[in-house]
Amino acid sequence: MQRMPEEDVGQIPRDLRSAWIVAIGTELALGQAQDTNSAWLAQRLAALGVRADRHVVVADELAAIRAVLSQAAAAGDLVLVTGGLGPTDDDVTRAALAKAAGVGLEEDAASVERLQAFFARRGREMPERNRVQALIPRTGLALPNQCGTAPGIHMLLEGTPCYVLPGVPFEMRAMYEAEVEPVVRAAAAGAVLRSRRLHTFGAGESDVGLKIRDLMARGRNPEVGTTAEIGVVSVRINARGRDAAEADGLLDEAEAEIRRRLGPLVYGRDSETLGGVVGERLVELGWTLSTAESCTGGLISQLLTDVPGSSRYFLGGLVTYSNALKTGLVGVDQALLMAHGAVSEPVAVAMADGAARVTGSDVAVSVTGVAGPGGGSVEKPVGLVFIGLHTCGACAPHAFRFGEDHPREVIRMRAARMALHLVRTSLPDPPAARPGR
Amino acid sequence: MQRMPEEDVGQIPRDLRSAWIVAIGTELALGQAQDTNSAWLAQRLAALGVRADRHVVVADELAAIRAVLSQAAAAGDLVLVTGGLGPTDDDVTRAALAKAAGVGLEEDAASVERLQAFFARRGREMPERNRVQALIPRTGLALPNQCGTAPGIHMLLEGTPCYVLPGVPFEMRAMYEAEVEPVVRAAAAGAVLRSRRLHTFGAGESDVGLKIRDLMARGRNPEVGTTAEIGVVSVRINARGRDAAEADGLLDEAEAEIRRRLGPLVYGRDSETLGGVVGERLVELGWTLSTAESCTGGLISQLLTDVPGSSRYFLGGLVTYSNALKTGLVGVDQALLMAHGAVSEPVAVAMADGAARVTGSDVAVSVTGVAGPGGGSVEKPVGLVFIGLHTCGACAPHAFRFGEDHPREVIRMRAARMALHLVRTSLPDPPAARPGR
Repeated sequence: MQRMPEEDVGQIPRDLRSAWIVAIGTELALGQAQDTNSAWLAQRLAALGVRADRHVVVADELAAIRAVLSQAAAAGDLVLVTGGLGPTDDDVTRAALAKAAGVGLEEDAASVERLQAFFARRGREMPERNRVQALIPRTGLALPNQCGTAPGIHMLLEGTPCYVLPGVPFEMRAMYEAEVEPVVRAAAAGAVLRSRRLHTFGAGESDVGLKIRDLMARGRNPEVGTTAEIGVVSVRINARGRDAAEADGLLDEAEAEIRRRLGPLVYGRDSETLGGVVGERLVELGWTLSTAESCTGGLISQLLTDVPGSSRYFLGGLVTYSNALKTGLVGVDQALLMAHGAVSEPVAVAMADGAARVTGSDVAVSVTGVAGPGGGSVEKPVGLVFIGLHTCGACAPHAFRFGEDHPREVIRMRAARMALHLVRTSLPDPPAARPGR
Repeated sequence: MQRMPEEDVGQIPRDLRSAWIVAIGTELALGQAQDTNSAWLAQRLAALGVRADRHVVVADELAAIRAVLSQAAAAGDLVLVTGGLGPTDDDVTRAALAKAAGVGLEEDAASVERLQAFFARRGREMPERNRVQALIPRTGLALPNQCGTAPGIHMLLEGTPCYVLPGVPFEMRAMYEAEVEPVVRAAAAGAVLRSRRLHTFGAGESDVGLKIRDLMARGRNPEVGTTAEIGVVSVRINARGRDAAEADGLLDEAEAEIRRRLGPLVYGRDSETLGGVVGERLVELGWTLSTAESCTGGLISQLLTDVPGSSRYFLGGLVTYSNALKTGLVGVDQALLMAHGAVSEPVAVAMADGAARVTGSDVAVSVTGVAGPGGGSVEKPVGLVFIGLHTCGACAPHAFRFGEDHPREVIRMRAARMALHLVRTSLPDPPAARPGR
């Protein structure tokens, strides 16, 4: 039997409001790897009106994990745990959970079968080593893993429901969606917290904050705040209501007011990205796009193709990192490179024009700049970036100074986002005629 | 005066061993943004022998922050805090810190001057809104921010030294390096914890674990563990010693043994990346590389150009997302596309050959596949990827099934890393002659 009767492990309490999220792994505590699971889980919980009061990271150490689990179970209505379920000896979450509950571990027959089937699908026999993953605390339930080896665990800890999920992000996500979310959704039927984010590009955080300052006053519902990340200033709106409809109504009102004040600075909301928004506009217009990148090295085309279905409008990109390719691939005149250097307005223009010509796209955007940390000069310091924007048969250059004090990855991301921002704001409102070539 | 005398804020205790890291932000607690600061700080502390026992994330709420700060100060020898120092009304870290210490906030004249100078350098006047960032708890010290507006704060909390740093990652990093690390380094002179990671590609976590199982036994020094992330299995080694030399000696021994057992699976250590390692080999050989990407959409060239100085060997890349560009740019025969489809071995080979021909590179790698979530069929399911590797004038195709159950970004990253892995393992050991073209 795969599942014990529900009464044996307890229901999640109605009126569920607050959760603790615990991420386990020495590599996380030492900062050798980044915990992305907790943020993902917090977001999913928030959508159901459950607030993650604390996220805690703790190393693969039995006593420390046990202590954190007990503290979390005492403080939260729900505890979600990720990590430490692997097949190697440093994975002690199973044992720590059993200790915290004061029970032993037992092999779960259904989990062993699923492990064997997992390896069989890949044409291999299960390594004996993986059998340890089927050990489950006696009072717990094994949760099937649809896309990996580690089963999850569901059990009550000091009366609080506790779900332990694998640390591998996509396995964790699939298991959360199949095993945890339906139960949380059913339980979190009291007050609902709904969130929305509006993303802006083109103004600083304090400028954005000033335009919506009254909406950001403490204690209001919805609660409004801002965050900044490499040029993107996001406005988050959190609304509480008795149900989703009430909370969503508050969100709609706040969103409309914020959009009115911020105007075209707002490019999208929630999971919308600059790359995705540019894509939607291009689809509406029936236009196509190409790129010619130097210092961003393919980042713009990567941001564009992160979006499923981007082949409808993104023809392709040319990463002309060397001067020879700038000449050979996109036809930048060698004399232009000699006279102005690769990082210059005329070269940015020639790259964008060349990309449009070579690919036959309606719009083309190019970037050439000094991403650093080396390669800067007094005349052309680190952070100097030129963007060429070819649209409707004409090409305009744009120059930026992204700050010598910024690291390489920040300058590259800022340049790539700026390129997409320029494309977005240059596109006419649909419907429009396809431009002549 | 910029600084109060040191005795006024206290020294970090000698024999510093354990730190708490607190990240503040409603966007972090709700999972709307990812906290990368805590992992970075933990890594830097570990290098000095200071273990981050806990990382805690808490929302922008005065009472909650105050409680977490008090708990952290009681439990740790050192508390590092990031975030909530912005100019908008949702930034309450300054106030929470003052409350926790039971003192008021005062404007710091030096910080106001630095804020004004910051805006002046950008040709603007300081928005009045930013003045609030110069407020510092009365018993604290303002820490100058070299690349942003928010000053940091250093003060004692219940006798424990506490450093509050800005939430913007590169500002936080610069301030940590200038203001915090030197003090921690001087204080953490007792036991030293040194860490190293060896990165492998090409085998699963349990296979890697099996080869080094005895080294992973509990309680050993060094402590050895594994983690897996999209095809990369990393072995981390943490060694304790009386000083850095002793700890490093233990690391060297363990590294040599692990390398002996894992052989060519190991591609690098610590911050070394597949892209960087491939680059180093190419430099040693005097060879050049180009790419032709379809489903990875520029990700390979992005991983390559993440590395400063990559222009020495990376000529450029062609993102041939549309079939027309596969034909037009890299010369894939249209008949080939018709007969086999874009996702096929012959097209992968033709793309790599085309990239080498068009760019004149010694080595070229191509990827064509189905990244999903749409576009799969029974014959060519999501996760099917072909990689073409052109080297020494010949081209070999490689076929992979990365799993229909994997999300788009995982399939793309796995394909891009596999392409770099194939390039790496195909390169001859230097020194070698430059191949004929």
